Amino acid sequence: MALKLQVNTERLVRELEHLASYSDTPPPAITRILFTKPDLEARAYLKELFQEAGLKVREDPLGNLFARWEGHAPELPAVGTGSHIDAIPYAGMYDGTVGVLGGLEAIRALQQAGFKPHRSIELLVFTAEEPTRFGIGCLGSRALSGALSPEALRALKDSEGNSLEEVRQKAGYTGPLEEVRLPENHYAAFVELHIEQGPVLEQEGVPLGVVTAIAAPASLRVVLEGEGGHAGTVLMPDRKDALCAAAEIILGVEAFARGSGSINTVATTGFCEVHPNAINSVPSRVRLEIDVRDVEQSRRDQVVRNILQGVEQVCTRRNIRYSVEIINMDPPAKSASEVLRALVEACGEASVRFKLMVSRAYHDALFMARIAPTAMLFIPCRGGISHRPDEYASPEDIARGVQVLALTLAKLSQAEEKGPPKDEPLTLND
Amino acid sequence: MALKLQVNTERLVRELEHLASYSDTPPPAITRILFTKPDLEARAYLKELFQEAGLKVREDPLGNLFARWEGHAPELPAVGTGSHIDAIPYAGMYDGTVGVLGGLEAIRALQQAGFKPHRSIELLVFTAEEPTRFGIGCLGSRALSGALSPEALRALKDSEGNSLEEVRQKAGYTGPLEEVRLPENHYAAFVELHIEQGPVLEQEGVPLGVVTAIAAPASLRVVLEGEGGHAGTVLMPDRKDALCAAAEIILGVEAFARGSGSINTVATTGFCEVHPNAINSVPSRVRLEIDVRDVEQSRRDQVVRNILQGVEQVCTRRNIRYSVEIINMDPPAKSASEVLRALVEACGEASVRFKLMVSRAYHDALFMARIAPTAMLFIPCRGGISHRPDEYASPEDIARGVQVLALTLAKLSQAEEKGPPKDEPLTLND
Repeated sequence: MALKLQVNTERLVRELEHLASYSDTPPPAITRILFTKPDLEARAYLKELFQEAGLKVREDPLGNLFARWEGHAPELPAVGTGSHIDAIPYAGMYDGTVGVLGGLEAIRALQQAGFKPHRSIELLVFTAEEPTRFGIGCLGSRALSGALSPEALRALKDSEGNSLEEVRQKAGYTGPLEEVRLPENHYAAFVELHIEQGPVLEQEGVPLGVVTAIAAPASLRVVLEGEGGHAGTVLMPDRKDALCAAAEIILGVEAFARGSGSINTVATTGFCEVHPNAINSVPSRVRLEIDVRDVEQSRRDQVVRNILQGVEQVCTRRNIRYSVEIINMDPPAKSASEVLRALVEACGEASVRFKLMVSRAYHDALFMARIAPTAMLFIPCRGGISHRPDEYASPEDIARGVQVLALTLAKLSQAEEKGPPKDEPLTLND
Repeated sequence: MALKLQVNTERLVRELEHLASYSDTPPPAITRILFTKPDLEARAYLKELFQEAGLKVREDPLGNLFARWEGHAPELPAVGTGSHIDAIPYAGMYDGTVGVLGGLEAIRALQQAGFKPHRSIELLVFTAEEPTRFGIGCLGSRALSGALSPEALRALKDSEGNSLEEVRQKAGYTGPLEEVRLPENHYAAFVELHIEQGPVLEQEGVPLGVVTAIAAPASLRVVLEGEGGHAGTVLMPDRKDALCAAAEIILGVEAFARGSGSINTVATTGFCEVHPNAINSVPSRVRLEIDVRDVEQSRRDQVVRNILQGVEQVCTRRNIRYSVEIINMDPPAKSASEVLRALVEACGEASVRFKLMVSRAYHDALFMARIAPTAMLFIPCRGGISHRPDEYASPEDIARGVQVLALTLAKLSQAEEKGPPKDEPLTLND
């Protein structure tokens, strides 16, 4: 079967731009936080597009959105693709969205080419891949895969004290959270298209990355409690300044990552909140949130241990009370060989050069890998820049990714029932 | 003339507690920001009390509030007392308010004792001693003394972009700002009652402090601009992390103060705001606000120079763009000998032990000293704690301060026209 696929690049770019208009910050800065007005409006827009494409739309009680193209054998496990549309404050317009609208365009290209799927193809929009509102990333895919229980979901509160329960119900998602988790055999395969969010593809001039493993982050929340007071009258030796302790910890986080022995270790204090945050008041309390990643789990875990030890040392020396909460510390995921094989073959059919590579960003695919054979497809982004308003992927690169995604989905949807798993070794180019 | 003064401590404490109920945070945390609802309601409450005491109430276009007890010689320069009622976020209930309600109680005690003032006595409530809303402290007294011009006032904006002009007019203060500045001969003397906000009086067991000088702070605003990006994908050597640069500066501020050679040097980074402030995003921009104080101006200025140099070095090394704005760098004020003398004599009459001391906190008196002979009176506060919900001054200490304040106001109001100024040396016990 030789598929003649026509990706409508113009329409796809137009839709990406329209999706970007749902934002809480003026363009080009995109801010789209879970269950805010822009998020709900963007969801409505997508549902309309999905329905126009003849897909059957379903939403689960957490807001995960499924658009299904029914196959000839709807009783067989389906083939999934998709990504997320939420965006951290002042982010760009390609992170996640390319995998959602690109997934839709892949389906439309297959439809237009007269392709008829054997297994159903499902396009997913995951709820809250970004941790902005509830402090934990991949909320939707964690719940779908069972990595986050309904009890844990019910315990979540945002920084304003609203529980996820209130927030989702106000947004119209009222069903029992027990219905969110997917059975393990729901998908025969899952593949996520995403911008690289790193500089490798652009630097090496390779148009596609086939992801063999995802480096998962550990996230820590550190609360420091010192003693406040008047900035003029509390003498220096009497101070228990929570911000000075925080400053030492921030520099420690940086130093531990730099000193890990590998360029692949990154650690970031991305969040710092000071109380009472007034120029003439000694800071009494600081909350830090720290992200540590590595493709090598043991090395990452060593950095986390160094940070925990560093926090203890700084706080003991400075007489600061503290608490550390490990928000998550997920293992990395390895891609499934059958999905990789489909991707590699699709690249061949489309005559697109590719690179086997590792993802250092978090993705919903990390959790989908727990319940389905999973892999990812990366397209280059300018300067490796992401999570910023100037994030950019070219229409050509996006279209190339969509074409390979479509061919891959076609292959996977025609695949027979799986035999026993073959243990073929994968070489990671870490 | 021997005045028999009865300070109504119970009423004064009741009024302090009632004033504390006007707050944007639940008790015991007081938050009363310029021209917010609690601030306007507290002002209305005070005006009612002032009118009940027979005082003539006037407000200037900036919201400075004057309550005048007309003397026999209303044409002579008056005697002023007073303080402020605004409170930084999560502050306590005594800072400033003791000088306002204590000043009122002093006037009422004089009235009840049958005292008739020669010069008028004016009780002042200064607008925004705290810098919370417009980033600059002593807004009202700066403007009264001419240290801040109407043009400079009109240029002020709060962090949400509202100009002082809009904000004051919305609060009902609509007159021209040109009318705020007081003539130099408006007051024959000014004396401010305040809690110490430091531990000295309590530690030494002395019930009153007579302030011979006020150490004025320098305030700096530092904006750091690095480069944002995804916390997983931007490798450590490629980072321009604005928060890591900020952390070095915060530790530098602390180290320069500790290393100044004097226990009297304090420096604080009280404000730190991070952008975009998301756990998985490399901080691209940080704003710091830094407060530096010393009783010795040259030593303070050296610390400021060290900080400026430190910012430059850190930012050059880390490839971070930066700007530093010196918000203010006021000279210290020395108290006027004639006001000190009245205070010392009043302490003698009331048989209250006192200590000559220096103020390390900012006060409206610092600016009143530019247009009137000025001094301050300190009462102890528990543990030297201020700007915190557990700030506390005992009713006995407050009453003692009010009694001495009343005797001082009586003396100053009876004083004849000033002769040529006498240059008597003052010894500071720095």
